[in-house]
Amino acid sequence: SMQTSGSKPCSCPSLKLREVASMYFTMIAVFLVILVVALQGSVPRGSDFPYKVPLDPQGLLELSWNVSYPEQAVNFQLLIRDLQFGLLFGMSDRGEFENADLAVLWSDGHNSYFGDAWSDAKGQLHMDSQQDYQLLGARKAPEGLYLLFRRPFSTCDPKDYLIEDGTVHLIYGILEKPVHSLQAINISAIHGGLQRVQLLKPNITIPELPSDMKTMEITAPDVVIPSQETTYWCYMAELPEDFPKHHIIMYEPVITAGNEALVHHMEVFQCAAEFDTFPHYNGPCDSKMKPDRLNYCRHVLAAWAMGAQAFYYPEEAGLAFGGPGSSRYLRLEIHYHNPLVFKGRRDSSGIRLYYTATLRRHDAGIMELGLVYTPVMAIPPGEDSFILTGYCTDKCTQLALPAAGIRIFASQLHTHLAGRKVVTVLSRDGREQQVVNADGHYSPHFQEIRMLKEVVAVFPGDELITTCTYNTEDRSRATVGGFGILEEMCVNYVHYYPQTQLELCKSAVDPGYLHRYFNLVNRFNDEEVCMCPQVSVPQQFFSIPWNTFNRDVLKSLYAFAPISMHCNKSSAVRFPGEWEKQPLPTITERLQEPVPHCPPAPGSQPAAPVPLNLGKLRR
Amino acid sequence: SMQTSGSKPCSCPSLKLREVASMYFTMIAVFLVILVVALQGSVPRGSDFPYKVPLDPQGLLELSWNVSYPEQAVNFQLLIRDLQFGLLFGMSDRGEFENADLAVLWSDGHNSYFGDAWSDAKGQLHMDSQQDYQLLGARKAPEGLYLLFRRPFSTCDPKDYLIEDGTVHLIYGILEKPVHSLQAINISAIHGGLQRVQLLKPNITIPELPSDMKTMEITAPDVVIPSQETTYWCYMAELPEDFPKHHIIMYEPVITAGNEALVHHMEVFQCAAEFDTFPHYNGPCDSKMKPDRLNYCRHVLAAWAMGAQAFYYPEEAGLAFGGPGSSRYLRLEIHYHNPLVFKGRRDSSGIRLYYTATLRRHDAGIMELGLVYTPVMAIPPGEDSFILTGYCTDKCTQLALPAAGIRIFASQLHTHLAGRKVVTVLSRDGREQQVVNADGHYSPHFQEIRMLKEVVAVFPGDELITTCTYNTEDRSRATVGGFGILEEMCVNYVHYYPQTQLELCKSAVDPGYLHRYFNLVNRFNDEEVCMCPQVSVPQQFFSIPWNTFNRDVLKSLYAFAPISMHCNKSSAVRFPGEWEKQPLPTITERLQEPVPHCPPAPGSQPAAPVPLNLGKLRR
Repeated sequence: SMQTSGSKPCSCPSLKLREVASMYFTMIAVFLVILVVALQGSVPRGSDFPYKVPLDPQGLLELSWNVSYPEQAVNFQLLIRDLQFGLLFGMSDRGEFENADLAVLWSDGHNSYFGDAWSDAKGQLHMDSQQDYQLLGARKAPEGLYLLFRRPFSTCDPKDYLIEDGTVHLIYGILEKPVHSLQAINISAIHGGLQRVQLLKPNITIPELPSDMKTMEITAPDVVIPSQETTYWCYMAELPEDFPKHHIIMYEPVITAGNEALVHHMEVFQCAAEFDTFPHYNGPCDSKMKPDRLNYCRHVLAAWAMGAQAFYYPEEAGLAFGGPGSSRYLRLEIHYHNPLVFKGRRDSSGIRLYYTATLRRHDAGIMELGLVYTPVMAIPPGEDSFILTGYCTDKCTQLALPAAGIRIFASQLHTHLAGRKVVTVLSRDGREQQVVNADGHYSPHFQEIRMLKEVVAVFPGDELITTCTYNTEDRSRATVGGFGILEEMCVNYVHYYPQTQLELCKSAVDPGYLHRYFNLVNRFNDEEVCMCPQVSVPQQFFSIPWNTFNRDVLKSLYAFAPISMHCNKSSAVRFPGEWEKQPLPTITERLQEPVPHCPPAPGSQPAAPVPLNLGKLRR
Repeated sequence: SMQTSGSKPCSCPSLKLREVASMYFTMIAVFLVILVVALQGSVPRGSDFPYKVPLDPQGLLELSWNVSYPEQAVNFQLLIRDLQFGLLFGMSDRGEFENADLAVLWSDGHNSYFGDAWSDAKGQLHMDSQQDYQLLGARKAPEGLYLLFRRPFSTCDPKDYLIEDGTVHLIYGILEKPVHSLQAINISAIHGGLQRVQLLKPNITIPELPSDMKTMEITAPDVVIPSQETTYWCYMAELPEDFPKHHIIMYEPVITAGNEALVHHMEVFQCAAEFDTFPHYNGPCDSKMKPDRLNYCRHVLAAWAMGAQAFYYPEEAGLAFGGPGSSRYLRLEIHYHNPLVFKGRRDSSGIRLYYTATLRRHDAGIMELGLVYTPVMAIPPGEDSFILTGYCTDKCTQLALPAAGIRIFASQLHTHLAGRKVVTVLSRDGREQQVVNADGHYSPHFQEIRMLKEVVAVFPGDELITTCTYNTEDRSRATVGGFGILEEMCVNYVHYYPQTQLELCKSAVDPGYLHRYFNLVNRFNDEEVCMCPQVSVPQQFFSIPWNTFNRDVLKSLYAFAPISMHCNKSSAVRFPGEWEKQPLPTITERLQEPVPHCPPAPGSQPAAPVPLNLGKLRR
């Protein structure tokens, strides 16, 4: 198998790299780089390429990779189980085949070629002027052909994709017929698809796990997944009686085989300690039969979303559960996404907790940043990139955080279907300090909990500003904030230690100012629109005539109007204080956009001056 | 003198260019390029460098240049009359010494050096990685040292200035002490300044002038320039009785020696033919003594502004004056700009008209595009680049232009002191067709009439959209539209043929919508502001609290509200039709920003693919 044995074909890439590099310097464009090394069983060790993902649903193409931060490059190993006449592999903004950056292997039936190419807005392929997918090797094995290649994060070629933190949309295509040139490839006719991955995995070593570690599975009891697109399933579980305090130090998903595409996300909540017992329940979360008391089960213990791997706590922290003062009752919530409306599918998915009685130094916590789930935050229809921002203000962190601050070590970004980008920035005294987590190619279909590259320290008085960018070009009416899949959210669940009482630090525009906006729309536009106050906020948004003025003024309102702050402990209890009509945080100094570092091209070092012989100056 | 004789040191620049180019390719950075050629009288001919401007007020530095459009480069000849220890010459966005692109000649007292450098935001000099000021030669002559060098319009070096159409702010500095390196130059301590020029003069041949050409000077009669900063002086002149129709085919300024810095701009207007006589007047245009009838003298015959050269009509057109149906009376208007409040300066400046009785094929005309002079168009204080747009709508051109269209051949952009950029774009059926005239480094102190590089054809139904960008960072209250020097204008005077009745095609926001904006400001802001309708529009603008919301909504208003069109014949008579509450022209297709063409660097041509030997595919 892939994981077991074999020599290391990548043990001397520097030599081959030099060979490749010499190609560019001598400008001899065509020469043979690499030949077939048909060594039985010489597969790379798993540790060389620790990350792995199938590209296509059948697993014919399997991508493994590693990241070299010192060299700012990704090394790829692509296993092609059944090579026909070549393949495309590459990246694009959101997984489209137009304006994509591609490595192409193609065969005319006799010879095979490899090249770095790009596709234009019409999908036509072109060779790149700079060859930035550097072929390192090709190797036949019983399971298929391995292609090894390398790609710098940034190439300074404007046609190339910039590999950034967060989601990368990988695309693949299989060439089923011989092609005589790159230009002859008809991209619209090829069989292909996309896969989302976080290419730039942080360089974090997995903490050692204690010997007394135990596991517990919180899984649905053979649920029949409802034959409807969206279901939030609620199931109550219970810890043993007198279960003492433990630390969860790791957890991972348990997905019923075959349901990988249906289980969208899962969370385990602990119930409030005020109640001695909670009713058993197993059914849809929005059912009228659901006991109200389940609303008091909101303290997140574990959260997983499609695409995520196992989650490890940092070695100095664990998530507390059990013991006196904490409820024995847990609520498992599973979001089933069943767009093809399968009937009768049974599911026992859930989360496997790994926990220890040997408590770590700190309790860890999860905090919600971003926007309150309220319709006052809305996105007009037909916008290609509309921005909403949620604030965790200095006043709230001042009140709720310990003097020594907290350390954020992981983050899960969350929006519904219109979300395209999410970023949280830490600001101190009006000056942006650092990005907590950013995803410029965010997809609601790939909501992992991501370990941060570096732990972010947040102190009392700091501000955490979460900005989401939405695309509503396919919608004909406004998208308001809310829980529904066609409503929107803007949330960053940050994982941190030591735990504090602050569970939620989010904002929304002041409703009074929104009311002034509706009045203004009423008065300003010639059309007679009923923006009557007795009508609900969503209804008022739905009846706005979306001309450029009303769009612009809504943006201006959100950038100006005071906010209502939700600075909450668990069970939706606010910290004491005045949280209405709060001023918007002001930013006086923004973080610089990172400028891709372009390696100096030959001849681009600062030149020396040209000496002149002018005789004596000053006649 | 410069203009008379001598060999041509530039007759074989291609050889020297090759030498220079070889430097970059061999990457041997330091070698001797050029030696002193001390030939008495071997000055270049005037035709080699047809454009000339003194850089400093004393004329110690004199720049001549020519433009090679095929090579996309400017060739400079810089005469240094009294070389001390070197000089800086270069370009920057608006004439500042920071973030400038510089050619530097410096001497350590023994040797002299030449290099392409740039200054950072703090004014520190650095050698450029690419040497784009290419030294072509240096030559001593009795009058001083000539430096010949060349600069491509675009260098693709991000530290370099992009030479574009319109105004270029040239900067110069004189090194008065020896310096041991480029880095040792203290830019804040050097004596220097700026000069504005249009570097990229259009490649237009001066039409042949007829043998029967006569001249007429319309000049002020020994006026005492008032000792105040701004004076518009009005002087009435008269054509001889029974002066038949002639064509003005050229005109040029006549400036009283010593007053070059005081005469800001001058215009000659012809009076309306309806009145048999006009009173003689010689005095300030805003005087209560000025007869009202002078307001009927608004038909522009000639216009000159500081920095402009002689103006030639294209050979198929001339500007008609004289003859039946036209008034004998002319009004000369001179804008004296006297910021140092000189007293008792006498002036007889004006314009010299060159005209012919041999009429050309077409009468030429001048049309005003842009914004109406009205306070409804205003700029908030503290804006670094606020945009106002004036429209000449399809409805107006449909009514006023002949079916065969008109040809615009020259343009004069006009704003007051806050103007930073002006551009007019021609749009047809909502699609932008071409730029009529653009100046991205516009200065109100350099308002030339510029010949267009190519004549622009405008047909009935076309739209002409003029956009001005203003900077009001130094102002504490709103800047409204109007005639005052601290009020603003946004105008493009386009010169065209054949003449039509349309003299003015301008717009302003609908006053009713502006009133709604004032109401909105009143209601939306918590502060109690009196935006009472009985107060004047400027007063209402002055009392707005300029928060981000009020700024944003004003922008949105101007981008949305219908306009009042001024589609006028001479004497401010509108063409018949409904011109109030007109819809804003919509643009469905914008012109692409020109992408600087970067010459391919070595190795950046599309690479050939790498052939692989994979044996037979499809096992």
